[in-house]
Amino acid sequence: MKRAVVLLSGGLDSATSAVMAKSEGYDIYALSFDYAQRHIVELDSAKKIAKFVGAKDHLVIKFDMSTIGGSALTSNIDVPKDKLPDASSIPVTYVPARNTIFLSFALGWAEVLGAEDIFIGANAIDYSGYPDCRPEYIDAFENMANLATKAAVEGRSRFRIRAPLLNMSKSEIIKKGSNLGLDYSLTWSCYDPQQNGLVYVPCGRCDSCVLRGRGFKEAGLADPA
Amino acid sequence: MKRAVVLLSGGLDSATSAVMAKSEGYDIYALSFDYAQRHIVELDSAKKIAKFVGAKDHLVIKFDMSTIGGSALTSNIDVPKDKLPDASSIPVTYVPARNTIFLSFALGWAEVLGAEDIFIGANAIDYSGYPDCRPEYIDAFENMANLATKAAVEGRSRFRIRAPLLNMSKSEIIKKGSNLGLDYSLTWSCYDPQQNGLVYVPCGRCDSCVLRGRGFKEAGLADPA
Repeated sequence: MKRAVVLLSGGLDSATSAVMAKSEGYDIYALSFDYAQRHIVELDSAKKIAKFVGAKDHLVIKFDMSTIGGSALTSNIDVPKDKLPDASSIPVTYVPARNTIFLSFALGWAEVLGAEDIFIGANAIDYSGYPDCRPEYIDAFENMANLATKAAVEGRSRFRIRAPLLNMSKSEIIKKGSNLGLDYSLTWSCYDPQQNGLVYVPCGRCDSCVLRGRGFKEAGLADPA
Repeated sequence: MKRAVVLLSGGLDSATSAVMAKSEGYDIYALSFDYAQRHIVELDSAKKIAKFVGAKDHLVIKFDMSTIGGSALTSNIDVPKDKLPDASSIPVTYVPARNTIFLSFALGWAEVLGAEDIFIGANAIDYSGYPDCRPEYIDAFENMANLATKAAVEGRSRFRIRAPLLNMSKSEIIKKGSNLGLDYSLTWSCYDPQQNGLVYVPCGRCDSCVLRGRGFKEAGLADPA
């Protein structure tokens, strides 16, 4: 069986990318990060999704990005509410170099596993304008990856950064995952979880909640979460 | 004052790159990693060197690369001894994607600091053949960095990966640092420290010790460490 490292945040996009990797016949090695994110509750979802797709292993790497800061997701900056993200500016929920850090760990693990494919749920249509979700970034990372690694330089591996959602709308993503049997009740999207007694509930108003809500509506499906 | 993020392992090369950055007039923001490396004693040296160069800040980011493994420096593989590294093979001390992970964190911090320059002590002459120390890798990372980040995409920053030692021999590096007043007794090179009572001593036989010894000899200087 061919192996793939699949970045799994616990969100809707990465869960869909995981079931797409599964449908291509890969053995899934799921990789998540505990980076002091505000919405660390997403890791509970990542664990459920890893189990759902039958991941052979699920690694959670822990480091503290709040020491670097610069983002509403890792420091004491308010998460914007009630406005749709637009292409004209990158919002404060951007985390400096986050996908680059995540993909770098994925690359290291892929090399050790003998995997050539790294799946990331990056999307450049219904997204928040993050630069590290655009096709030109993905291509540049892949090029760098094949110069960075022993396996590539010695000709044993040719790494591919697989971003199957890159050019899909949110509703297309949801339809695709639904067709592949993904249970979206397992996923978590909200950047700013609200505590209600012992449980966390989505705020319903951050970029990520708004994009999710719109996606389900456009797909003509009810959000089970 | 212009700012630079300087990767500081505690070794000879990164210490030299730090004093070179200092000599160019940068405010130094030193960045080190506690990644479960076998020679974690190097971090004591990194702290001393950061102080020596008057770093404005010194961040140590902690994560566990032993869960990824695949290297003699992070897992239970013996460190090779008594043979000079050669260009024909990459030794087991190679850590998958290490410089990519280190530079990615440096990129995130640089973006938050408003720094454009990231110094790395990579060297492609007297080295162990690690792919992520070669000029083509450094160029590819820099290209990716300028597509990955909000500051670059919005035109506020143009990131540069500065590897001033890239084409210098070890003896040239040592002479350069000595001329800039670097105290090499602060540095630590050995991959496989031996415990002698309460202190650690270099093995004298690993790649890193051998390259260091040869460099001082060729420079006609005594190693103060």
